[in-house]
Amino acid sequence: MGMWIGIGRKARRCYGFDEVSLVPGKVTINPNEVDTSWQLKGMKFEVPILAAAMDGVVDTRFAIAFGRLGGLAVLNLEGIQTRYEEPEKIMRRIIKASARESTRIIQSIYREPIKEPLIKKRIEEIKKAKVVCAVSSIPQKAERFGEIAQKAGADLFVVQSTVITKKHVSSEYKSLNLSSFCKKMKIPVVIGNCVGYDVALELMETGISALLVGIGPGAACTTREVLGIGVPQVTATSDVAAARDFYYKNSGRYVSIITDGGMTTSGDICKAFACGADAVMVGSAFARAKEVPGKGFHWGMATPHINLPRGTRIEVGISGSLREILFGPAKLDDGSQNLVGALRTSMGSLGVKNIREMQLVEIIIAPAIKTEGKLFQQLREKIT
Amino acid sequence: MGMWIGIGRKARRCYGFDEVSLVPGKVTINPNEVDTSWQLKGMKFEVPILAAAMDGVVDTRFAIAFGRLGGLAVLNLEGIQTRYEEPEKIMRRIIKASARESTRIIQSIYREPIKEPLIKKRIEEIKKAKVVCAVSSIPQKAERFGEIAQKAGADLFVVQSTVITKKHVSSEYKSLNLSSFCKKMKIPVVIGNCVGYDVALELMETGISALLVGIGPGAACTTREVLGIGVPQVTATSDVAAARDFYYKNSGRYVSIITDGGMTTSGDICKAFACGADAVMVGSAFARAKEVPGKGFHWGMATPHINLPRGTRIEVGISGSLREILFGPAKLDDGSQNLVGALRTSMGSLGVKNIREMQLVEIIIAPAIKTEGKLFQQLREKIT
Amino acid sequence: MGMWIGIGRKARRCYGFDEVSLVPGKVTINPNEVDTSWQLKGMKFEVPILAAAMDGVVDTRFAIAFGRLGGLAVLNLEGIQTRYEEPEKIMRRIIKASARESTRIIQSIYREPIKEPLIKKRIEEIKKAKVVCAVSSIPQKAERFGEIAQKAGADLFVVQSTVITKKHVSSEYKSLNLSSFCKKMKIPVVIGNCVGYDVALELMETGISALLVGIGPGAACTTREVLGIGVPQVTATSDVAAARDFYYKNSGRYVSIITDGGMTTSGDICKAFACGADAVMVGSAFARAKEVPGKGFHWGMATPHINLPRGTRIEVGISGSLREILFGPAKLDDGSQNLVGALRTSMGSLGVKNIREMQLVEIIIAPAIKTEGKLFQQLREKIT
Amino acid sequence: MGMWIGIGRKARRCYGFDEVSLVPGKVTINPNEVDTSWQLKGMKFEVPILAAAMDGVVDTRFAIAFGRLGGLAVLNLEGIQTRYEEPEKIMRRIIKASARESTRIIQSIYREPIKEPLIKKRIEEIKKAKVVCAVSSIPQKAERFGEIAQKAGADLFVVQSTVITKKHVSSEYKSLNLSSFCKKMKIPVVIGNCVGYDVALELMETGISALLVGIGPGAACTTREVLGIGVPQVTATSDVAAARDFYYKNSGRYVSIITDGGMTTSGDICKAFACGADAVMVGSAFARAKEVPGKGFHWGMATPHINLPRGTRIEVGISGSLREILFGPAKLDDGSQNLVGALRTSMGSLGVKNIREMQLVEIIIAPAIKTEGKLFQQLREKIT
Repeated sequence: MGMWIGIGRKARRCYGFDEVSLVPGKVTINPNEVDTSWQLKGMKFEVPILAAAMDGVVDTRFAIAFGRLGGLAVLNLEGIQTRYEEPEKIMRRIIKASARESTRIIQSIYREPIKEPLIKKRIEEIKKAKVVCAVSSIPQKAERFGEIAQKAGADLFVVQSTVITKKHVSSEYKSLNLSSFCKKMKIPVVIGNCVGYDVALELMETGISALLVGIGPGAACTTREVLGIGVPQVTATSDVAAARDFYYKNSGRYVSIITDGGMTTSGDICKAFACGADAVMVGSAFARAKEVPGKGFHWGMATPHINLPRGTRIEVGISGSLREILFGPAKLDDGSQNLVGALRTSMGSLGVKNIREMQLVEIIIAPAIKTEGKLFQQLREKIT
Repeated sequence: MGMWIGIGRKARRCYGFDEVSLVPGKVTINPNEVDTSWQLKGMKFEVPILAAAMDGVVDTRFAIAFGRLGGLAVLNLEGIQTRYEEPEKIMRRIIKASARESTRIIQSIYREPIKEPLIKKRIEEIKKAKVVCAVSSIPQKAERFGEIAQKAGADLFVVQSTVITKKHVSSEYKSLNLSSFCKKMKIPVVIGNCVGYDVALELMETGISALLVGIGPGAACTTREVLGIGVPQVTATSDVAAARDFYYKNSGRYVSIITDGGMTTSGDICKAFACGADAVMVGSAFARAKEVPGKGFHWGMATPHINLPRGTRIEVGISGSLREILFGPAKLDDGSQNLVGALRTSMGSLGVKNIREMQLVEIIIAPAIKTEGKLFQQLREKIT
Repeated sequence: MGMWIGIGRKARRCYGFDEVSLVPGKVTINPNEVDTSWQLKGMKFEVPILAAAMDGVVDTRFAIAFGRLGGLAVLNLEGIQTRYEEPEKIMRRIIKASARESTRIIQSIYREPIKEPLIKKRIEEIKKAKVVCAVSSIPQKAERFGEIAQKAGADLFVVQSTVITKKHVSSEYKSLNLSSFCKKMKIPVVIGNCVGYDVALELMETGISALLVGIGPGAACTTREVLGIGVPQVTATSDVAAARDFYYKNSGRYVSIITDGGMTTSGDICKAFACGADAVMVGSAFARAKEVPGKGFHWGMATPHINLPRGTRIEVGISGSLREILFGPAKLDDGSQNLVGALRTSMGSLGVKNIREMQLVEIIIAPAIKTEGKLFQQLREKIT
Repeated sequence: MGMWIGIGRKARRCYGFDEVSLVPGKVTINPNEVDTSWQLKGMKFEVPILAAAMDGVVDTRFAIAFGRLGGLAVLNLEGIQTRYEEPEKIMRRIIKASARESTRIIQSIYREPIKEPLIKKRIEEIKKAKVVCAVSSIPQKAERFGEIAQKAGADLFVVQSTVITKKHVSSEYKSLNLSSFCKKMKIPVVIGNCVGYDVALELMETGISALLVGIGPGAACTTREVLGIGVPQVTATSDVAAARDFYYKNSGRYVSIITDGGMTTSGDICKAFACGADAVMVGSAFARAKEVPGKGFHWGMATPHINLPRGTRIEVGISGSLREILFGPAKLDDGSQNLVGALRTSMGSLGVKNIREMQLVEIIIAPAIKTEGKLFQQLREKIT
C-alpha cells in the first residue's frame, strides 16, 4: 500500500476530492424520493450539513435559521458572541473597516476577554427557538465551558483543535482527559479534527459521539503550506469511516463521522458521503448567505492558528439566501448553491435511497479538475 | 484493476481524452482512400458525427444542411422548435438580448408549452428534404412524443437524460419501460446517456439500436462539479464498446456506440473512435457554424439540469461554414475545424481503412495537454 | 507494461521530457574536456545538432554558417529557396507583411512552382563553402529530387513526412519504395519521422543511414490536438534507440537516431541524448538567431500539414547570434541559449566523456515542470 | 523500484516537497516543549537552519546577527566581502542601479580580484562577536582559502559546487583531493552539493563532517531547465539520509545531512526534516529580512553557473526582521515567516520531541499544491 519515495522510505498515496468521481449504477431514483437525513444520538437532521463555528458565519440568529431548515450550526464559544454583549455592533466595525485596518481591528476585538455569562445567554437564545444547540471550544477550555454549556441547555458540545489526539503532552498546562470529560458530560461530545484509522479508533474509545475528520485537507491549504501537515479528504474520510465500521462491529456503538473542510462544491459534499461520511461540516459556503453576521465577509477559522496572522478578513460577497444555498434554485452553476438539491439529484442519479447507501457507491479515480481554468476565464472576462 | 484510496476502499483509475494519444503503426494510407462512414439499422452516413439536440445548434434548416453533407442532426422535441410556430423570431430575441437580460428572457421563453402539432410539422419539414430525421425527448415524454414522431415520419427516436438506467424508481410518476417502448416503436430507438459495462449490457437487451455514452465526461464539467458524478470518456467508451462486442458475439445484434460529450478537438474525436465508438455526438463544435440558428450563441444542454441555472447563454462566435467545420480548409490550427478531414488524415497516418479498424489502433497514456497554456497565450495577447 | 484504461483495453504509459530528469553519478569531468561530436557515415560533426528544414531558419547562408560552426543544416527543397531565384526578396515580403495579411501572402508565395534548376543551384552554393550539404523532400518527390540533389553534389538526402512507414497504401499515386530508393542513392539517406521499435527496425532494414524520431512529440502539439496522434519523446527516443542497438548487434550496421521535435530547452536536448539519441534536430531554437532568413519570424513546418492553415507566421524575435545560441555566453537563463555549452556542462556534471556514454546516464521520473508558472510571471510583469 | 519509460529502459519515480505531506499520529505535544536544536561536531545550534552563502544575504553583520539568534550563516569567500574593503558601498551601487544597468554593473563588480587579507579580516570580524564562523569556496580554491580561513579562526569550512563528487577528471587543472583536504584541515569540512546513496557514502568516507543535499531540486529550477539535471528533494534527502544511517552504523561516525534548496515555505522545511535532514540551508527566505546587505534584492547563487547570465538581480522586497522571519509573529500566511515557530508547531502537532524523532514521522504522497492558483489570484487582484 506504499510507494518508494527514497531508499528505505515508503509513502502511501492519498487522494483528494478533485481526483475522484462517482459512478452511476443500474438503477436511478426520483430525487424527490431520496432521504438525506442523518441522526446523532437520537437527534435527527433533515440536512446532513453542519455549519462550522466561524464568527463570520454562525451567530445565534443563524443557528436558529439553519436549525429550522433542518441543519445544525455550531456556535464558537470563544468568539465575538461570548466576548461582547452586543456582537452586531462589533461585526459592523469589522465589516466597515477598510481593507488596511481590518486585520488590526479584528486583532484588537479578539483581545476582549470571554464573559462566561454570555455563554449561558447565547445558548438560551438558541434554545428558546426550539432548535438543537451545538457549541464549541478548544480542548484547554473544554472542562470549564462544557460544564457551563451543559447547564445552560446546550444539546451538543464540540471540542475542536487543528489536530486532536487522546494523549497531549505538556508540562506547562493540564491536558484535557477526553475519556473522563465524556463521562462527565451528559450531552453528546463531538471532537476533532483527526485523520487516520488508529487515531480515530483510539478517540472513539473515549466515549465521543461523533468525530470531525480533516487536517490540512486542501492541496493549497495553509496547514499544509505552513506546517507541511495534511491528508487529502477522500483518504482521510475513508480511513476514519473504516475505523467507525470496525468499532461499531466490535462495540455496537455507532460514532458518526463528519467530514470537515476541503469541500468547495456540492460535488465535493456528495463525494464526502460516498467516502463514508455521515455528515459534513462547511464554513465558507455559508459565508455567502444573506443571513450570516459577516455580511459577505469572513475571517479566521474556528481554531485560530498560531502561525497565521489572526484576523485576515476575506470578502466573499453575498450570493443568496440560506434557503437558496441549501435548496436552490441555483443561480450559479459552480456547485456553490442548492447544496441539498444537488445531493438529492446525485443520490437519485446514483440510485441510492439514503446516506447509508450513498456511503457504498462506486468511486473512481479521474483526472483532477483544473480550477485554474475557471479562474482564467473569469480573469479573461474581466480584461476583455 | 483498482488502487487503494483508503483503508478497505479501492477505486479504479479512469482516463480522459487529454491523457491518451494514438500511435501510428507499420502502414500509412492515402487519407483520400479511407472510409469514414458508419451505419445505423441500414441507414448509412458518410460523416460519423451526430449533432447534439441543442436549440442553439439544431433547427430544421440545420438538420437538412447537415444531413445533405452526410451527417445526422438530432432535433430537440422539447425546445423552441416545438414551442413556437416561428422559432426564428424567438431566436432573434435571445441573440439580441443584453448579457444581463439573457438568462431571464431564455427562462421565460421555455415556459411556453410544447405544441404537439409542431412536432409533426418540424419532422415533415425535415423529411421533405429527403434526409434522415432524428428527434429526441426525455424519458417521461418518450411514449407520447415517440408515437407522434413515428407517425410524422421520423426515422430515429432518441431518449436522452443525464443518466439513463433500465430501472428508474419513482412513486410520483410512471417510469418509462424501455423494453416495451422499443417493442412498440417501429423506428430505431437510441438512448442515453450511460457509462459502465453492466449497465450498457442491460440497456442493449431492451432492444435499442444505439447507445449514447458519456456522463460528466469532462474534467471541469458541471455534472462533476455539482453532483460529484462523472466518468472520463476514454474509459467510458472502452467499457461500453466492450459490452457491445460481448453482446454482439452472444446475440448477433450490433448496437452502435455513440460517444457524446467531452470532445473539444478533432483529435478527441479521433480518440473516441480509437476507444471503440461507432460514431460521436458533438454540440459546441457546430455552434460556431454560420448555419446554426444560435448565430454564434448557445445555451442549455439537450437535457436541462435541475441544478443548473437554465438559460445561461454563452457566446462562441462564428468560425466558418458547416462545410468548413466538417471538411476544411481549416483556418485555425486548434482542432476545431475540418473535423472529417482531420479524421481522414488521422486514419491515414494510423494506417486504418475504416472506423472498424480505427477501433483497434494502439492507445498510449501520455501526459495531459495543458489547455491553460493556450488560454494563457490568448490572454497575454489580449493584454499586450 | 500496460495499464487498464477500459475493460479489455490496455495502454502503455509514455513519458515526455518535462517528466524526467538526469542524475549525476560518482564522477564529474571538466566540461572543456568532453567530446560532443557525432558521426554519420564517416562525416564527423562537432555539434550534435541538426537545423530543421524550415524556410524561416535554413537558407544557403545559414547552412554554410552553421556548417562552419560544426553543425548540419537541412535545406528544404520544397520551400522558398527552390521556388524563387531571389528568396531574400520574398522573405522581406513575409517579414514586412502586417499580421493580418501575412497568412494570405505566405499562402500565395508557396503557390509558385518549384524550379528544378534552383535545387542544383542552392546545393552548389552550399558546397562551394566546403560544408556538408543536406537537403530534404517529401516522399512523393524523393525519387526525382533525390537524383537531382545527388548529381548536384549534396552529401545527404532527407525524406521527411509527419509519419513515415515502409508501406504506404495509395491507388491515386505511386508510393516511394524506400529499399530501392536507398539502393539507388549513392549518398546517405535519412528518413523520418517515426516512432516505435518495430517500425524503426523495419525502416532500418531498408538501408537508411539515420532515422528522425518524433511524431506529435509535445503535450500541446498540433498533431496531437488535430489528429489525436503523438508519442512523448522520452519513450519514442528510447524505443527507437533500443531498435538501433538490436539492429546493430544483428547486422553490424549502425543507424543513427536523431530526435526531432519536442525539445524547448537545452535541458531537453541533454535528456534526448540520455534517452539514446545520436543527434537532435531543432528548429525554433535557431529561428531566434541573427543569421536566419526569417529575421525573428518563422512559419510552417518542414512538412506542411494538410489540416493546418499553412502559413501562420509566428514572431519569436532575435535573441543573439548563432554562435551565442550554440556556444554562449547565455544572456537568458531559460535554456534557449548556449546549447552546446549547456550540453558540455551537463556531460561534465554527469561524468560522461562522449555522446555514447551520455546515452547511458541514469534517468529518473520527476514531477513535470509547470511552464504556465513562467508564462504567468511574464503576464504579471506585463500588467503591473 | 523503476517504471518502464521505453523499451529496455527503466526510471525511478522521485518526489518533491509539493507532492508529499506529513501525517499526525496518536500524540500531540505542546509546541513550546519541543527541541529544534541540532549539533555539528560539538557545536550546538538552537535554530536548525543555515543561511546560504549568497552575497545579497550573508555579510559579516548578518552572520553575527543570525549566529546570535541560534543559526549558522555561511560567508562566501569569493564574493563582494573578500573583493572589496568597503562592501557596503558596492552593495549600494547594486541596489541603486536601474533594472537595465544592474546586470552589467554586477558583472563588472565581480571582476575585481579576491584579496586574501580580506578573507582573514572578515573571519576575524565574525569571530570577534563570539559566534560560530562558517565560510565557503569552490573546490578549486578550497586548498588555498581553507588554509587562510583556518588560520584566521574560522570554525567551519564549506566546499560547494553544483555537483560534487569524490573524483573529478581534468587535465587542465589539479582536482581537489577531498580525503587529504579533510585530513589537512583541523576544522570540520562541509561539502556539497550531492544526491544519491552511493555518491553520499563515498563522500562520507573522505572524512567530511556534513553533506549538503540538493542538485536541481525544484521542478522549475534552472539546473533542470538548462542542464536537464535534477533530483526532487524528498527523494534526494531520503536517499542521502539512508546513506548517513548506514555509514553511522558501520563506522560510528555521524555525518550530518543538510538539505539545501527547493524549499519555498516553512512547510517544505518541516518536510525536509521528515525526510531525514539534520538541518536545512535556505537563501531566498532570508533575502527579505531587514538585516541583509541586499536590502530586498538578491543576485546569483553561492556557486555561479557558467550557463547562467551571472548577475541577474531579483527584487524580493523586505518582509520583516530576521527575528520575525525566524520566530514570528507571522504577518503573512504563506509560510515565508516564523520558520522556527512553524517547525515547533509542526513538531507539536506531529507529536515529536526533537529533530531525530521528526526524521521518522509518516510521509504520504498527496496531490501537488498548485501554486499557479495563488499567482492567479494575485494577478486577478492586480487587474480588478
